[in-house]
Amino acid sequence: MSNNRPLILVTNDDGITAPGIRNLISVMNELGEVVVVAPEGAMSGQGHAITINNTLYCDPVVIDDGPQKEYKSNGTPVDCVKLAMDQILHRKPDLLVSGINHGSNSSINIIYSGTMSAAVEGGIEGIPSIGFSLTSYKWDADFTAARHYAKLIASKVLAANGNLPAPFILNVNIPYFALEEIKGIKIARQAKAKWVESYDKRVNPQGREYCWLTGEFVNMDQGTDTDEYALKNAYVSVVPVSIDLTHYELMNNLKGWLDKK
Amino acid sequence: MSNNRPLILVTNDDGITAPGIRNLISVMNELGEVVVVAPEGAMSGQGHAITINNTLYCDPVVIDDGPQKEYKSNGTPVDCVKLAMDQILHRKPDLLVSGINHGSNSSINIIYSGTMSAAVEGGIEGIPSIGFSLTSYKWDADFTAARHYAKLIASKVLAANGNLPAPFILNVNIPYFALEEIKGIKIARQAKAKWVESYDKRVNPQGREYCWLTGEFVNMDQGTDTDEYALKNAYVSVVPVSIDLTHYELMNNLKGWLDKK
Repeated sequence: MSNNRPLILVTNDDGITAPGIRNLISVMNELGEVVVVAPEGAMSGQGHAITINNTLYCDPVVIDDGPQKEYKSNGTPVDCVKLAMDQILHRKPDLLVSGINHGSNSSINIIYSGTMSAAVEGGIEGIPSIGFSLTSYKWDADFTAARHYAKLIASKVLAANGNLPAPFILNVNIPYFALEEIKGIKIARQAKAKWVESYDKRVNPQGREYCWLTGEFVNMDQGTDTDEYALKNAYVSVVPVSIDLTHYELMNNLKGWLDKK
Repeated sequence: MSNNRPLILVTNDDGITAPGIRNLISVMNELGEVVVVAPEGAMSGQGHAITINNTLYCDPVVIDDGPQKEYKSNGTPVDCVKLAMDQILHRKPDLLVSGINHGSNSSINIIYSGTMSAAVEGGIEGIPSIGFSLTSYKWDADFTAARHYAKLIASKVLAANGNLPAPFILNVNIPYFALEEIKGIKIARQAKAKWVESYDKRVNPQGREYCWLTGEFVNMDQGTDTDEYALKNAYVSVVPVSIDLTHYELMNNLKGWLDKK
């Protein structure tokens, strides 16, 4: 961190005009110098997608009268982080925050989430990075509690002044309760859960069959140390995220079996 | 696995007509009953993207005279796996194979790769799943060695007859050498590496600036137990993949700090 105010990069996957990111920007303006690089439209479920076969635009935009600088892009959340690092920022930011997502990114949702993939990309780049999500999909949700915890957690991370292990990536989910009903923060592990799909099959006006993806979230994890458990019990869940996907236990099992000549 | 021939689901991210998947299909036809559900076009870099805000098509298609059943979709690789499970297959496949990708998915590439995300989705669904990638981007690459190792590894996994830990997800990369030059298989961990971006900035005919994503792969890992090291030394690398992204070491560090009232 320089002697100046900390530099904070803000992005999301719901698009630059979503209430979640507008709330996050206004909170971050209290903590540092804010640059926003975010998708112009909805990018939910984009995971860690990047744009290889298409052109990317990234243009300055003014959305409100806050002090932040803003850019909107046709790219994915991960594209936005890469564009910010290479094209817009003149130094490495002290913090990347992504969100506040409209809807939970707890448990297995992290794998599908553009919000969290932007935070993961920040972590790969060596930036302390936090994805914030509120467990309500409502566009007009009350962000009071989410704002409070976003400010609290971002402040603590900034106060560490860069003395953090790398990568430093947090998946923060805020349960949709009134601020005074939330019991605090729980450091948790990712619950074992999955989505069970059930496509909604229809026929288009030309007679061709098509589907909409729908599904049901199923938590198979009975643990009391998970993000799902924390959220159900009115705690903010914080799951630190790894970018090393190696399954070390399985690695040992495979030796002498799969590599045998 | 049933008493019948094993059921093998095949997908990729280079599109259903790519030489890599055509080679993989012909190899898998030797091992079981093959159903292909793959993107109609290129989906490289799609990561774990899913299609939420758009309609999905999935139609039967005949591409060659092999015994496999094939379906092409406008969806991402992960959509293809979900569509196969919910709409096409009548039972859980015994194996999912994805690829053979044109280009490496070693190290950090796993996070961006549609090929590997399809395998990860298979793992989430409880299917033993393998992503295969050849370290050559050439469309007319020689797949002889890749075919050999795809058959060898898939056979061993099928021979385990479902007695495998879950999730069972392998990231297999085949170095671009002649078959007889490859020294064998190394079980490895994901190397610590990243892409350093450098956008190629241009001006479109309307005078608006746009970018193409380009970048350089940088391996920061000196370890001799990594996938990068194995590939450089003419070994096929096999990295088992976890779907639990929790950073357990950091989790312990955060306790008593971030959750303090």
